[in-house]
Amino acid sequence: MNSINKINSMKSLTIIAAAFLGLLITSCMENKSENSKTEPESIFPKGVKGPSENFTGNAWNTPLVSNDSTYNTVIGNVYFEPGARSNWHTHPAGQILIITDGVGYHQIEGKPIEIIKKGDVVKCPPNVRHWHGASPDIGLQQLYIIPNTEKGIVNWNESVTDEQYLINKNNLK
Amino acid sequence: MNSINKINSMKSLTIIAAAFLGLLITSCMENKSENSKTEPESIFPKGVKGPSENFTGNAWNTPLVSNDSTYNTVIGNVYFEPGARSNWHTHPAGQILIITDGVGYHQIEGKPIEIIKKGDVVKCPPNVRHWHGASPDIGLQQLYIIPNTEKGIVNWNESVTDEQYLINKNNLK
Repeated sequence: MNSINKINSMKSLTIIAAAFLGLLITSCMENKSENSKTEPESIFPKGVKGPSENFTGNAWNTPLVSNDSTYNTVIGNVYFEPGARSNWHTHPAGQILIITDGVGYHQIEGKPIEIIKKGDVVKCPPNVRHWHGASPDIGLQQLYIIPNTEKGIVNWNESVTDEQYLINKNNLK
Repeated sequence: MNSINKINSMKSLTIIAAAFLGLLITSCMENKSENSKTEPESIFPKGVKGPSENFTGNAWNTPLVSNDSTYNTVIGNVYFEPGARSNWHTHPAGQILIITDGVGYHQIEGKPIEIIKKGDVVKCPPNVRHWHGASPDIGLQQLYIIPNTEKGIVNWNESVTDEQYLINKNNLK
């Protein structure tokens, strides 16, 4: 093989290698972007949008256990999109929240807002006003468990204002 | 640049490209192996191994809500390793299971074994014998909710034999 042929053959190899590199980079970037999703992982279907008279922003409710006289328990999942939150409300027998992904806020009236995240479990006692929702930048996946439903399920109050929601660090637990 | 220099310079480029390719392939393979984990995703800490008098194989319990007279509810997470299962048992006020990842089995006495997987919710009525656990090949992450605990929490019975567990397709719901 003469020098010119060698150069041409290496040029071809380099072009093939470059094309292969391009494909690999694209494939890697796709993998990376799958790994770096900021939307919380969902275990359940997205569900139905919560009504605007009870929620600010987009909160998606998936009922999992409906009320009956055997278990006296209501269970469901809510996915709060970033910035979304419930109105203030009370539960006659209290409520338990289990956070399965994302980052959010929970506030019992008169107490600091607490940051809630994957793996956290929070309780709100019977007939105490509270609200919960996503953080401004990251959504929240939360299971709610309402026990002793023979006493009642939920009483809705007024919405959480932007001033109440847009907290500063002094107000965080 | 003469032909020899051109060949040498292209050889160097090819070697650099090959090294870069190698790195990219390794990085891609690492990503792929992260994505193809067969162990179920864990939301909670692994917890404490369930006692062998109540479980066959390795079942890891993380208590989340302990019993009290306000909520009358006990909640926890169990990670069943592949092949692990509970003994037969009853709950005086019934039990609700929420599957957050993996694949497992649930059987109410006298009924076919049902396959349970991520997103499923199953109930066992009060004082009915049942057992639950992982499938033979894939582990199970499950939340348990025991309501109305003023009636009692759990009564343990005998273990689930390999014959009861190693089901065939005719026995699957």
